[in-house]
Parts: sequence; C-alpha cells; structure tokens
Amino acid sequence: MANGAEQYESLQAICYKRGSLQLLDQRKLPLESTYLDIKDSKDGWDAIKDMVVRGAPAIAIAAALSLAVEVSNVGPFSGSTTDALSFELSKFLFLICSRPTAVNLSDAATKLKEVVHKAATTASEAQTVFQAYIEAAEVMLQDDVASNKAIGCYGASFLQKQQTDPKNISVLTHCNTGSLATAGYGTALGVIRALHEKGVLERAYCTETRPFNQGSRLTAFELVHDNIPATLIADSAAAALMKAGQVNAVIVGADRVAANGDTANKIGTYSLALSAKHHGIPFYVAAPLTSIDLSLSSGQEIVIEERSPKELLNARGGLGEQVAASGISVWNPAFDVTPATVISGCLLENGVQGLCVVAYGCASLR
Amino acid sequence: MANGAEQYESLQAICYKRGSLQLLDQRKLPLESTYLDIKDSKDGWDAIKDMVVRGAPAIAIAAALSLAVEVSNVGPFSGSTTDALSFELSKFLFLICSRPTAVNLSDAATKLKEVVHKAATTASEAQTVFQAYIEAAEVMLQDDVASNKAIGCYGASFLQKQQTDPKNISVLTHCNTGSLATAGYGTALGVIRALHEKGVLERAYCTETRPFNQGSRLTAFELVHDNIPATLIADSAAAALMKAGQVNAVIVGADRVAANGDTANKIGTYSLALSAKHHGIPFYVAAPLTSIDLSLSSGQEIVIEERSPKELLNARGGLGEQVAASGISVWNPAFDVTPATVISGCLLENGVQGLCVVAYGCASLR
Repeated sequence: MANGAEQYESLQAICYKRGSLQLLDQRKLPLESTYLDIKDSKDGWDAIKDMVVRGAPAIAIAAALSLAVEVSNVGPFSGSTTDALSFELSKFLFLICSRPTAVNLSDAATKLKEVVHKAATTASEAQTVFQAYIEAAEVMLQDDVASNKAIGCYGASFLQKQQTDPKNISVLTHCNTGSLATAGYGTALGVIRALHEKGVLERAYCTETRPFNQGSRLTAFELVHDNIPATLIADSAAAALMKAGQVNAVIVGADRVAANGDTANKIGTYSLALSAKHHGIPFYVAAPLTSIDLSLSSGQEIVIEERSPKELLNARGGLGEQVAASGISVWNPAFDVTPATVISGCLLENGVQGLCVVAYGCASLR
Repeated sequence: MANGAEQYESLQAICYKRGSLQLLDQRKLPLESTYLDIKDSKDGWDAIKDMVVRGAPAIAIAAALSLAVEVSNVGPFSGSTTDALSFELSKFLFLICSRPTAVNLSDAATKLKEVVHKAATTASEAQTVFQAYIEAAEVMLQDDVASNKAIGCYGASFLQKQQTDPKNISVLTHCNTGSLATAGYGTALGVIRALHEKGVLERAYCTETRPFNQGSRLTAFELVHDNIPATLIADSAAAALMKAGQVNAVIVGADRVAANGDTANKIGTYSLALSAKHHGIPFYVAAPLTSIDLSLSSGQEIVIEERSPKELLNARGGLGEQVAASGISVWNPAFDVTPATVISGCLLENGVQGLCVVAYGCASLR
C-alpha cells in the first residue's frame, strides 16, 4: 500500500507498507534525512514522545500504524478474540499518553477501538480482529491525505474570496503543518500549497517557531523543496511584518479545537492571533474535523503539555551546546490556547457544506 | 577612575581607566567571560558592529571611551587645536555609523562635539582639546550609572503606586537592558533591580530574545548573578504568560524614542506591547533622556537596522552550526517600532519632575 504522499517523495515522514513502518527522524532535519524502524507500539510511543514524528495528524497516524505493524508481526496468537481485543485496548491506552495536547491521537484510538470491538464480537479468530484493525489503520492513513487536500482546496478558494487582491496573497504561518506533520500535503501548509498551485501565492512567511524550530527546520525545508516563494522570520518579528503590510492572512494548524472554537496550537499562536487582530488581518485555523474535540466546552479544559527546560537552555531543541545562562528557571509550555474570539474562522475539510468556515468559533458544528 | 559599576564586578561590560579600555565579549556569554582590548576608535567600531558590546547606552559609552583611549595614547601631536578638532570630528562621523538605530550614540557624539569645539576655540594646544574630550567622555560614563539608578528608583516607586498588590510585583522584560547594556545597573533591568532591592519583586520573566538570545544569555545571566527570582520563556510564550495572570507589568528599554513617544527597541517589543494591551497590563519603556530623539516627529522616521540572515540560519547568533533549511530567505530586522498609543508611559531619570511618566507619548518633554 502506498502512503498516499508520493507526490512529495523526499518529504515522506511516514513510510508504511503492511508489516513495516519507518519514520523520518524530524529532529535531525534539515541536515540529515534518517529513518527509524518502528517495529511495535513501544517504538511508536518513543518516536512520538521524543519528537521523531510530530504534528497532531502525523502523531495519530504514526501511533495507529505502529500498532498495525506490531499486530502484523505478532505471529501465532493463541488467545481468543476477546484476548485480541484486550491486547489492542491496552496498547491504545499506552499510545494515547505519549503526548497529551493533540486530540487527533485519542480520536483515532476511539475510532479504532470501535473497529476492534465490532470485529471481536463477530469474528471467530483473533487474527481476524487484528486484520480488521490493520485495515482500519491503513484507511486512516489514506483518509488523512484526502482530508488535507480538501482543506487546502476549500481553504484556498475561500481565502481568495476574502481578499481585495485575490491573485497576490501573502500568508504567514507558524510551526509545521505540512507533509511532515500529516500523512501528506498538510493542513495550514496545505492551504499555502493550494494557493501556490493556483498561482496566487505572493509569498509564504514562516516563523522560526521556538524553541524546537519546527518553522526554520521543517516548514522552511518543505517550502524550499516545493519552490514556494518563502521568507523565514523570528517569531517575534511577526507583528512588525504585519505592521509593514506584508501579511494578508495568518493560517495556523491546531492540536485541539474545543467545541466553542478555542484552539490549542503551538506556543506563539495566541500572540500571532492578537497581532493579527490588532492589524485587522484575518486569522484562520486549518485543521481536519478530527482536531475538534466536542467533549470540551472551551479551551480552558485543554491540557497543555510542558516540555523540558533544555529546549530553551541548549541548542538543537535541547540536544546541543548550552546557550542560556546556567541556573535560570524555565517555563516551556509546548502549546497555548487561542480564544475563538480572536480567530476569524476554521478551515475544515467538511465536504457536506463545502467549506465550513465558522466565524468566531466552530459552534455550528455541534 | 573606577567605572562606577563596582557593585556588579563580575558583570562589568566596560572596564575603563584612563588610557585603557577593555570590553567584555558579550557574544561569548554566558559560557565564557573574555575581555577584548580596545586601543582606538577602529577597535571600538568593530566591537559595536560585531556585537561584542550592545545595548544603546553601552554602545554610546564604549564608542566615546574608545576614542578617549585613542587620544590618550596619541603621543606627540604636531597639529594645531583646529587639527585636533578635525581629528575628533572625523572619528565621531566614523563611530556613529557603526550601528544606526540607537540614538544614544549620535547624541553622545553631539555633546562631545560641543566640548571639543569649545576647547578648540579657547585652548592654545592640541593636547588641551584632547584632554577636554577625555574628561567629558569619562563624565559620560559616570553619568550613565547615576542616570540608570535614578530610572530604577523612580520607576520602582511609580510601579508600586500603580499596582493593586504593591508588595508582589512580577515583571516581564525583553532583550538585555542591564549592567551589560549600560555603564552599570541598567534601565528596564535597573527598575527590576530596584524592585528586588525593595523586596517587592515577586518574579522577573525574561524572554529568550531571538535571534541573538540577549535574554537567555545576558539577562538570565545577570538575574541569576544577582539572585533575583527569575524565569526564562520563549519570546512567543509571553502572551500565554500574560493570559495566565503571571505578569503585572512589562518593562523594556529603548534604542530610540521619537518626539511623539513611538519607541524603537529590540524586535519583538511591539508584539509584547500588543499582547500587554490586550490583557490590560501596563507596558513601560525605561530609558535615559538621551534615548529620546526630539528631531524625529514619529517612529516612522526611525531607521531600522537589518542584520545578517545567518542569525536565524545558524546557531549562536550566526556563528554556530546550521539550524534552518538551506536556501530559505530571511527577514531579520534587529528592531521594531512600538507606537506610543500602546505604551503606558516612559520611565525616565528626569530629576526635576521626579519621575516623568508621560502616558501615551513623551510629548511633555518637548
């Protein structure tokens, strides 16, 4: 089975065929393209926790596929279908605690749980339960690319309609939401790709995205790779760039969108939204419907992951030489929550309504 | 002559005695404390351009003293007093083009020019002109420390009066405005020092200050050195910190304040001001009167220095290993301009009026 991202071969973050999974080690980009073999859910958990793979949609797919590989290679399984079900459920529980903020992972687990529950009640052999799981995980991989392309297509058309000069649009984005953060194409970066494919993208601006530099390492890498006109800025230069009139829209991804439209995304997103609001620049969240967590009434309920102080104290996301003064305390939240009140709308793949853009929150989705 | 910063001996950025100047190489902090010998204005120019010394007040003092050392050691000077004047004036012209954004440097040059002009018209020997210059440069060094202490003292008292809990004040600052950026004590960091000396500082938060990391390298170093309770954050985490209710005031320095109060300061200052405004948190500029440029009616007239793309592409301010993707364009302005409309006031050393806090611009100074 192809992974659906063949059009960006050199940027395949997730290389899967049945029984085999390799993840591009994104910590080493842009200098090295090294793949790690993922043999089971423990390898998958480690790869997610250690940021080998990151980006809310990619994390969900990588977790699901790591377990697919594990059960593909499980060999003779002497247990019953109920044992197979228990085996799968315990792995889901384990995988979803690898990183807490993104909802896509637990959403994927919920959907896959339903599949194995159903299989366990109808099948007579454990292997059939595993087979049903593997097929469902593979469909998830394919669906992610299709969903991204829909977001890109609808998002680009919508954006054009909003602009006074729809043929020269400059977009600022944050973090990495591209082929590397998804199964392929990307969410916010997917919209930028779609604008570029239509020939109406003036320029993409990407932030460094401190402290892990997903912008300067990954987004810049994707933009250069695709020959998209692009400029890198320090996170803190975004407001000055907006004031200089260089930004027509800000588009970011999402790790989790609450029912009221409040959005958890990479730290710094909230600051960009406030600057955009001050300058009257539209600010959009591009995300698949799986990023929306209707169980949370507002962003206050979203758990924000805090990461190691080393990411600020040392170079290369904590792995490199010391940069900061010894002995300083650090507050390093990986995400912040942007209230729906400063978000112009959500760019979703909702094919039923065409583009579902819900100004000031995604309330109409409820 | 002592440099007036003896209370922070390990943080003396400028070590001067007549005929000798050494500058702490701030590019190597916090890992190494290395001093560079500055023998003349050419050495001074290089040290400023290459960021051995940075911070608007420190740049002005370092430039003035580099020329003081040069003329101290000029040896037999066969020219007239007019020749001595011409010699000095040409050096001023050279020095003020080392970095364009801060006004303190050209302000210092203007004042020193007046001194040498006056000396040249009254003195009979070139050496007397040089002597007058040296003494004036040394007074400038002393005055800077006194001015900072006044800013700190008045600023801290004023801030206390504004707060609902004047005994537990947490302040967010940006870049480095401390002993390392001035002749000693500091401007914005001087206010933080004064709050700490009064026992009312709950916590100082400092940003990394990308891309040159003056916050994580220098401000964190000073705060740890002085045992001030302090926490480092990514620049992009400031808005989330404000939303979490952890910031009672934001205090930053200034490279140049226009007559209407618009303020050029380290890139990212504008973004902090917008976030502070959104959260109803007071935002102050702490600066000596020499940072105010009454010749500029607004911030639009301030020249903003753009620095090398390498600062974002490579680690250690451009000197270290590659971080960002090859081939990406970069926009790297060193400063931005924060409009007076989003500044709560300027904390100055103005002893005549006590603390001169001019809400929405420094207009009353005109």
